[in-house]
Amino acid sequence: MLTKTSVDVSLRALRTLRLLVLVSLCVFISVSAASSPAQEGDDTEKKAEESHRQDSADLLIFILLLTLTILTIWLFKHRRFRFLHETGLAMIYGLIVGVILRYAVQVPRDTNVVPTGCFVNASPATLLVNVSGKLYEYTLKGEISSNEVNDVNDLKDNEMLRKVTFDPEVFFNILLPPIIFHAGYSLKRRHFFRNMGSILAYAFVGTVISCFIIGLLMYGCVTLMKHLGQLGGDFFFTDCLFFGAIVSATDPVTVLAIFHELQVDVDLYALLFGESVLNDAVAVVLSSSIVAYQPQGDNSHTFEAMALLKSLGMFLGVFSGSFSLGVATGIVTALVTKFTKLRDFQLLETALFFLMSWSTFLLAEACGFTGVVAVLFCGITQAHYTFNNLSPESQDRTKQLFELLNFLAENFIFSYMGLTLFTFQNHVFNPMFIVGAFLAVFVGRAANIYPLSLLLNLGRFNKIRSNFQHMMMFAGLRGAMTFALSIRDTATYARQMMFSTNLLVVFFTVWVCGGGTTQMLSCQRIRVGVDSDQENSMSFADGSERRSTKQESAWLFRIWYNFDHNYLKPILTHSGPPLTTTLPPCCGPLARFLTSPQAYENECQLKDDDSDLILTDGDISLTYGDITVSTDATGARTSGGLATDDLDRELAYGDHELVMRGTRLVLPMDDSEPPFTDHLRM
Amino acid sequence: MLTKTSVDVSLRALRTLRLLVLVSLCVFISVSAASSPAQEGDDTEKKAEESHRQDSADLLIFILLLTLTILTIWLFKHRRFRFLHETGLAMIYGLIVGVILRYAVQVPRDTNVVPTGCFVNASPATLLVNVSGKLYEYTLKGEISSNEVNDVNDLKDNEMLRKVTFDPEVFFNILLPPIIFHAGYSLKRRHFFRNMGSILAYAFVGTVISCFIIGLLMYGCVTLMKHLGQLGGDFFFTDCLFFGAIVSATDPVTVLAIFHELQVDVDLYALLFGESVLNDAVAVVLSSSIVAYQPQGDNSHTFEAMALLKSLGMFLGVFSGSFSLGVATGIVTALVTKFTKLRDFQLLETALFFLMSWSTFLLAEACGFTGVVAVLFCGITQAHYTFNNLSPESQDRTKQLFELLNFLAENFIFSYMGLTLFTFQNHVFNPMFIVGAFLAVFVGRAANIYPLSLLLNLGRFNKIRSNFQHMMMFAGLRGAMTFALSIRDTATYARQMMFSTNLLVVFFTVWVCGGGTTQMLSCQRIRVGVDSDQENSMSFADGSERRSTKQESAWLFRIWYNFDHNYLKPILTHSGPPLTTTLPPCCGPLARFLTSPQAYENECQLKDDDSDLILTDGDISLTYGDITVSTDATGARTSGGLATDDLDRELAYGDHELVMRGTRLVLPMDDSEPPFTDHLRM
Repeated sequence: MLTKTSVDVSLRALRTLRLLVLVSLCVFISVSAASSPAQEGDDTEKKAEESHRQDSADLLIFILLLTLTILTIWLFKHRRFRFLHETGLAMIYGLIVGVILRYAVQVPRDTNVVPTGCFVNASPATLLVNVSGKLYEYTLKGEISSNEVNDVNDLKDNEMLRKVTFDPEVFFNILLPPIIFHAGYSLKRRHFFRNMGSILAYAFVGTVISCFIIGLLMYGCVTLMKHLGQLGGDFFFTDCLFFGAIVSATDPVTVLAIFHELQVDVDLYALLFGESVLNDAVAVVLSSSIVAYQPQGDNSHTFEAMALLKSLGMFLGVFSGSFSLGVATGIVTALVTKFTKLRDFQLLETALFFLMSWSTFLLAEACGFTGVVAVLFCGITQAHYTFNNLSPESQDRTKQLFELLNFLAENFIFSYMGLTLFTFQNHVFNPMFIVGAFLAVFVGRAANIYPLSLLLNLGRFNKIRSNFQHMMMFAGLRGAMTFALSIRDTATYARQMMFSTNLLVVFFTVWVCGGGTTQMLSCQRIRVGVDSDQENSMSFADGSERRSTKQESAWLFRIWYNFDHNYLKPILTHSGPPLTTTLPPCCGPLARFLTSPQAYENECQLKDDDSDLILTDGDISLTYGDITVSTDATGARTSGGLATDDLDRELAYGDHELVMRGTRLVLPMDDSEPPFTDHLRM
Repeated sequence: MLTKTSVDVSLRALRTLRLLVLVSLCVFISVSAASSPAQEGDDTEKKAEESHRQDSADLLIFILLLTLTILTIWLFKHRRFRFLHETGLAMIYGLIVGVILRYAVQVPRDTNVVPTGCFVNASPATLLVNVSGKLYEYTLKGEISSNEVNDVNDLKDNEMLRKVTFDPEVFFNILLPPIIFHAGYSLKRRHFFRNMGSILAYAFVGTVISCFIIGLLMYGCVTLMKHLGQLGGDFFFTDCLFFGAIVSATDPVTVLAIFHELQVDVDLYALLFGESVLNDAVAVVLSSSIVAYQPQGDNSHTFEAMALLKSLGMFLGVFSGSFSLGVATGIVTALVTKFTKLRDFQLLETALFFLMSWSTFLLAEACGFTGVVAVLFCGITQAHYTFNNLSPESQDRTKQLFELLNFLAENFIFSYMGLTLFTFQNHVFNPMFIVGAFLAVFVGRAANIYPLSLLLNLGRFNKIRSNFQHMMMFAGLRGAMTFALSIRDTATYARQMMFSTNLLVVFFTVWVCGGGTTQMLSCQRIRVGVDSDQENSMSFADGSERRSTKQESAWLFRIWYNFDHNYLKPILTHSGPPLTTTLPPCCGPLARFLTSPQAYENECQLKDDDSDLILTDGDISLTYGDITVSTDATGARTSGGLATDDLDRELAYGDHELVMRGTRLVLPMDDSEPPFTDHLRM
């Protein structure tokens, strides 16, 4: 496939790459060497300064790593190498730096860690220590597991490695939120809502199935290990379930990047992306509920109905609480942007958008819910409503801002993952557990996808074909969420073993499954190069009948869509039909207050991304046709009031196509196969 | 001035505003109440969770404050109220919340702060405490001054107030860098470089003068206070100088915003902005040098030549080191963006730009230089070189990104300032010191502006007229930098008094001077509504002769400009004359390697913002006219190779204007007053 020139070019690229790596490593080593001089200052100020310099140097290492990743990935994109995604690359660089930190950099011992001899009978959050008359304030960082401090000298030796270890909460509170928000904000809404039922099934039912299957299998594995004497500490059934929960969060960022680039079938994309976004949320709440499962007799780890119910209640409470908070802030933002003219000042608008989205996270955390989950639903709400109220410039700005934050955070996490394989102090690699985990993960994923697809296909109009199922099975990559959840608590033996194993699962899935995506695509004969606008879910419809009834697959969607289109959109955005026509006449004043003047003008304007779901004029009148449109004068304008781009699109599709689009999903109507289906199909 | 309708409108606006305030305060109070339940969990995990929830709630307060500020400022902009800038407003809201926190919110005492009874003979960075068999890790937060802990119960009472107190280093390491970088990145380069000499004089000489004048005056004031028995602690001469240094950093963000909006004379804008940007850097380094001044006999605080020399050396070393680091990373970024085709992938490009700019800060801090100063010069370099290599999309993205970061950070700092007036625990308000400080600040600013302007006018071609001098005097606002420098260390009595006084100085200058800018402008009859493209520094030229010689004011600029245009621009960007024509022939291969192919094409393209400084074709040939242009074929294209927008601009100005522009600054030539000067002048 490669011609001689392109081989030459790749060789040159590789040489440049090698140079880049060398240069950065030199810089990096000199930085880390320069930044840790063992000055023995007796001044607190100097010590604090030293510590600050060390922190800067540590962070600098990661910044340089990311810079290196960016340059390399540019080379890869430039040369169209698709076998390695930037996250996979970030992991490799992280690994290299980890090896260097572990084996090459020798740091002189210092005396910064001093165990006090005195015994206190509590562990307060703030400690005041009297050092020769001066008071020093110390803040609680956490408990240190006993096997971590078998030898205090050991602890001092590893000072350097401890230094590059971030507070695990950083991942959860700083790096994950932008990633998750961006996922919600960039959900391909049209296809997401069209496949909503299936996505919800995979995400909720599937993740729970996967969690319990993996948990049970691991319990078997652990029991076997105990019998064989391979287990070095406690490992309860709840630990197994916890492992099942955190490893069930899929993160096919690599696969989706390739899908996007190759323009793979949009429904497959929506299914995979939607599932991965939502199952992160499910996995977070599930894992915290499992941790909360504590039978009355402490540490008994036996089954108890009350505790189970409590956990279940907690799951439902935390999930719905986070969901409501996220949606609520989204709605508040939508209302603020709708009823103020903030769009005249793009900077203020963007800042408000950013702050409101961030406050969701903080609000949820402050209320004891899960910020990450709230942020996800906030992102979806913002995309669905607020986005339509923003000025075009702010739309770009917010998209680009979160895209950038997502990129940086994601690559940071993945490079940290690589690093941590060598710098983490308490790895427990148990071959039997690892093999068991890989098997369990595989079986768990299969038990999620295949049975559910079978069930879903019974009700679905567009069947999920078997090659799609295989692809979804294959794309069960694990990533940032699994890592963040498992690094959060590494105090016990069980958790340490989980963490080490999870690292390997992530590495394997990202490199092997991620790298083999293109091969898998062609092997499964999945269509690529599909224009998402042209493509109209024909790929699914192969064997199924075209003649549809009102009872076709999308009933859930239809109910939601009608409600959204008739009430929510008009309330929260400038589009949709005027509320005066959809609400009962008794709500007249309220409806007039909430409806924006624009709504009368573009009553049937196909404005947003959901355009192919919006019913044609005639259809809408079926929904609220019995209520007289109160603004006939402006309503008359509608036929000429279409925005030019929408008109263009409609002209491109042709009238027939438009009718079919409005119809296939909602109304009973016989429509023949559109004429251009054949030449698009492979 | 206000008609009845506009009064109505303002009343409505104020009512909405009041509603906003009420709603947010309710939310805020319920949040802070909800988030501090006094659960007495004995578990570390629970305590950590509690602390995390508290932190989220605290941050949420600020986010809500900022949101409120944004909404209010939108109202103000919408109604064209100019008397209050967003930073002033942020301070007011901060004040309100501070009052509430201080007097309205009652928090139950908790036992999170426990003084240990045991004495340790060092203050290590990490402390391991054995609590009933479990080891807990504590990190050093800092020393607590003795008068802060007169009573431990007192400390517990103020837990809530302590909680909303951020680590002072946050300002220096997280909030200031984006502000300073943005300042550098958005320097109006054309007018900045044209007034480079004056700006450097004000920033360096002026700040040092101001620092010493204020220091001396305060020393007099403090001595007087000591005699009168008004002083409650030590206050050395170095403290006075330190005060002088930190209060010399001007930050006329309010004034500049109004200047920008009213399109005030660009040279005045450039002088003020340039001065304020650079004197921040000078003040930071100066203050750290003063702190480092320590005569041999510790705490003797007497004069010693060696210590002074050491401080001076440190000033020069730190400043030049930070400067070089900043410029170096800027140049590296420029080279990377020039020689890779990263511009095809805007996300990667933006990410790289962001990371490189951030790494400047970290690198400088890790090397012991001042990150803020490095970031400033990095910003200027990025704007001057890298910016030209970026794709248009990335140019927008980076500008918008740093604009947003700057906006958020700035308003955060100002609202924190308002808050801290009531929540800070160790205020020392001494009326005599405050009056002295206000006087000293006034005199110091006058001693900076007027004598320097007098001297500069001797050498300047465009005199700085007296109304400009008064305006600069008036615009000596203090802001974020003064605050960040004074909150950094509040351990001693002297520092606490400085901090409290500085807060008042900032409040006064931002509200009174900032609020009176429009009045001052009209009172000083300074021209507004000047189109910066049309305006061509005619405003300065009133009384001075037009007939210029090579020895006119801008000699410093001319040297720099020629070097920059002939060597730096061609090396670091795609514009400028090809290096093959400007470098001596012996450097041929290197020159060919460094010159980008585009350079041959747009040899004389007036591409960037400096366009009105770039010589016309004929002038350039004077510089390197004796060297034959090596690419005649492409060189011939130049006459037709002007970008259309440049052409448009030239056509608009007319030929005469263009010649005058190329001339006035560089070449001896008699040119008559351009015809449209008169109708533009007020």
